[in-house]
Amino acid sequence: MPVTPGPFAGRTVSDLALDLRAGRVTATELTRWALDAVTRLDPAINAFVCVDADGALEAAGQADRELAGGADRGPLHGMPVGVKDLIMVAGLPAAMGSRHFAGYVPDTDAACVTRLREAGAVIVGKTTTHEFAYGPTGDRSANGASRNPRDPERMSGGSSGGSAAAVAAGLVPLALGTDTGGSVRIPAALCGVAGFKPAYGAIPADGVFPLSRTLDHVGVLAADARDCLAAYTCLTGEPLEEEGGRAARVAWLDPGDFFAGDPRVVALAREAAGAPEEVRLPGGVAAELRDTYTVIQSCETVAVHADRLAGAPELFDPEVLERLRAAAEVPAWRYVRAMAERSRLAGVAGALFERHDVLALPAVLLTAPPLLRRETVLNGASVAVRAALLALTSPWNVLGLPALTVPAGLVDGLPVGLQLVCRPGRERLLFEAAAAGGGDQPGK
Amino acid sequence: MPVTPGPFAGRTVSDLALDLRAGRVTATELTRWALDAVTRLDPAINAFVCVDADGALEAAGQADRELAGGADRGPLHGMPVGVKDLIMVAGLPAAMGSRHFAGYVPDTDAACVTRLREAGAVIVGKTTTHEFAYGPTGDRSANGASRNPRDPERMSGGSSGGSAAAVAAGLVPLALGTDTGGSVRIPAALCGVAGFKPAYGAIPADGVFPLSRTLDHVGVLAADARDCLAAYTCLTGEPLEEEGGRAARVAWLDPGDFFAGDPRVVALAREAAGAPEEVRLPGGVAAELRDTYTVIQSCETVAVHADRLAGAPELFDPEVLERLRAAAEVPAWRYVRAMAERSRLAGVAGALFERHDVLALPAVLLTAPPLLRRETVLNGASVAVRAALLALTSPWNVLGLPALTVPAGLVDGLPVGLQLVCRPGRERLLFEAAAAGGGDQPGK
Repeated sequence: MPVTPGPFAGRTVSDLALDLRAGRVTATELTRWALDAVTRLDPAINAFVCVDADGALEAAGQADRELAGGADRGPLHGMPVGVKDLIMVAGLPAAMGSRHFAGYVPDTDAACVTRLREAGAVIVGKTTTHEFAYGPTGDRSANGASRNPRDPERMSGGSSGGSAAAVAAGLVPLALGTDTGGSVRIPAALCGVAGFKPAYGAIPADGVFPLSRTLDHVGVLAADARDCLAAYTCLTGEPLEEEGGRAARVAWLDPGDFFAGDPRVVALAREAAGAPEEVRLPGGVAAELRDTYTVIQSCETVAVHADRLAGAPELFDPEVLERLRAAAEVPAWRYVRAMAERSRLAGVAGALFERHDVLALPAVLLTAPPLLRRETVLNGASVAVRAALLALTSPWNVLGLPALTVPAGLVDGLPVGLQLVCRPGRERLLFEAAAAGGGDQPGK
Repeated sequence: MPVTPGPFAGRTVSDLALDLRAGRVTATELTRWALDAVTRLDPAINAFVCVDADGALEAAGQADRELAGGADRGPLHGMPVGVKDLIMVAGLPAAMGSRHFAGYVPDTDAACVTRLREAGAVIVGKTTTHEFAYGPTGDRSANGASRNPRDPERMSGGSSGGSAAAVAAGLVPLALGTDTGGSVRIPAALCGVAGFKPAYGAIPADGVFPLSRTLDHVGVLAADARDCLAAYTCLTGEPLEEEGGRAARVAWLDPGDFFAGDPRVVALAREAAGAPEEVRLPGGVAAELRDTYTVIQSCETVAVHADRLAGAPELFDPEVLERLRAAAEVPAWRYVRAMAERSRLAGVAGALFERHDVLALPAVLLTAPPLLRRETVLNGASVAVRAALLALTSPWNVLGLPALTVPAGLVDGLPVGLQLVCRPGRERLLFEAAAAGGGDQPGK
């Protein structure tokens, strides 16, 4: 049963920006809405791990004074934002879902937070992450599981589950997340919001706790693609390249090569994509992308945590610990080969974009499973939930390609996401395709 | 007891180039000298694994006709060259010192061989390598050990031992090698010739069988630094950057932080360097460079050979096999950390060049050990020969810096090399320092 919608449900950043400039609302009011909503509604979904009421109201007051004085910082000016707990905000705790960092408070903002502040955004608080972002389910965290606003007994997806749940529940209109194998797009899709993972490196990762440096991306979550675009351009500080006005050439990428998904989910995403020409990956490439992702991700994650793994293993969540210990056994030569494979695959996948600008496919092949569920039945067979969640998102982390998910409708009352992928430099066409397609209406 | 000197002993590429253009000799004659010398003298040192008499004489004839017709391809025109057996030459066997590739004949030239041919050089044959270049001693190869022309009971050093021995014995005036941890500079120093490992990537490695892709460099060996420079500029196809005529600022880098070497070797190298200001690495950096080298090199080498290791381990040399099996156990997270450490160390070491253009230090801390010796006594303590050989050369592979070794004299009748290191783009100053210092006279 869905939770009560918060004040930002059905409202976009672009609508709010108009209201703000028309004097229909102030940044201080928006921030109070967010703070009040977190107090009232967050206990049901656990999207936030902490709020910064004083800091937020001060930033909002400043935003109001600036706007009154004619200083306009652009589309995020005065907007309440949630920041994933993996991303450092000076003065706010950053436990990152782990008992290892209980009580840790960084004294410096991450680069993306600095940019948020420069854009006039108001940081409301930190959102729940799967422990160290190491899991796509969002339900293993020292701060507790984040829950799906559509059904709090189901997972939000992860690891940026708190950010997705916060936007989906209408607690804030915008949130930052990180995406190493789908951690922005998976929870966005499962919760029914838009999520954008830009090209590798497009938003700097400085000040973001690493999961896997080769695959880590900073991304944004909002009600629709247009809001993601507004936040993205604020965070990069650069306008998108123009494309000469031509329409995006969109192809449907058959997801069956990656994983046999829920046919109703696939059909809904395909419907949202329109009826583009169908393309397929060359034989074997889907499996190579998956294996390359798995090796790079797990080995780099162990490199981050090896000292904690040796020194205080008992502080990890048991499932996270078990996964780290398995990953610690992978011999180095497999990683070396995976990194070489990644370079080779970039060329192979590049060929897919020779005749198309945008590839469309589902974001996730199933709807949100129940919390802590690790095996589920798809097409009559038992499948691993983590592998199913990651199947369609992680390839674009291996390749570093921009990938957006937008809401595509509901199956059994649970959201489905349409994913759109492009080459770096073609983001404008990606967002145009999103606007032209079926996914750009929040709450559809 | 030294072997009989061959026809190119005491002759440089630059001298020969003058002779050729003055009509005192032809390329065909130079090639016949080389072919005859290999037949007569190579059995004592095993520098060559095969010669290509027909191909070489054809290329020499072509070089003579071109020169007679006024077409001059530059300093390597008509010069006989040996090519390390790790580097592909179309139509010539490339066993790479291993039974795994017995009878293997590539059908394409490596990129550096293509450039050699374009520069008019005459490829005489392939030179002995340590098996798959995996060892700095040059004495473990399916083709037999290459031997030191100064004393054939001693190692040439490796892995480009055949190239160094061939030049030192006067069989050819120039040879190509590869250098992953010192495999050009170590044998050059131990055999008493000059060897240059350029900046990472300066000479393309396409068509060179990999040892460790992050550390592999193609390099050149010749009688003196000037010949190395001539060959290097032919192989890159680009002239060196000008430096505005200022003198190189040279500093002596204390080798004691890396390894406690033979004091007579260190003293001789230091004398050859003149008496420059002394600098030291920041504390701990030498050990970090060594450990970073070891992890990256061994893990990447296993990645190259994992299938052979699983499928036909008995075809490896037993020592190579033992080392590969140990390296295969290194967990991936150590490699991930080593790669991050490499990036960090580049910054640390960069600081050494703030006040100096060139760092001088010995190339190798001891003279050539007897063949197959794996432990030796230095300063009253037993030390591992491989570690001692690599100690001063491998740091510059980790950092990708240009490094040259030039002959600095003899200790107990065995050659010592002075090593000069610079930043990429400062190669002109490096070679000027070599010319100004004590190392630029072959046979000193």
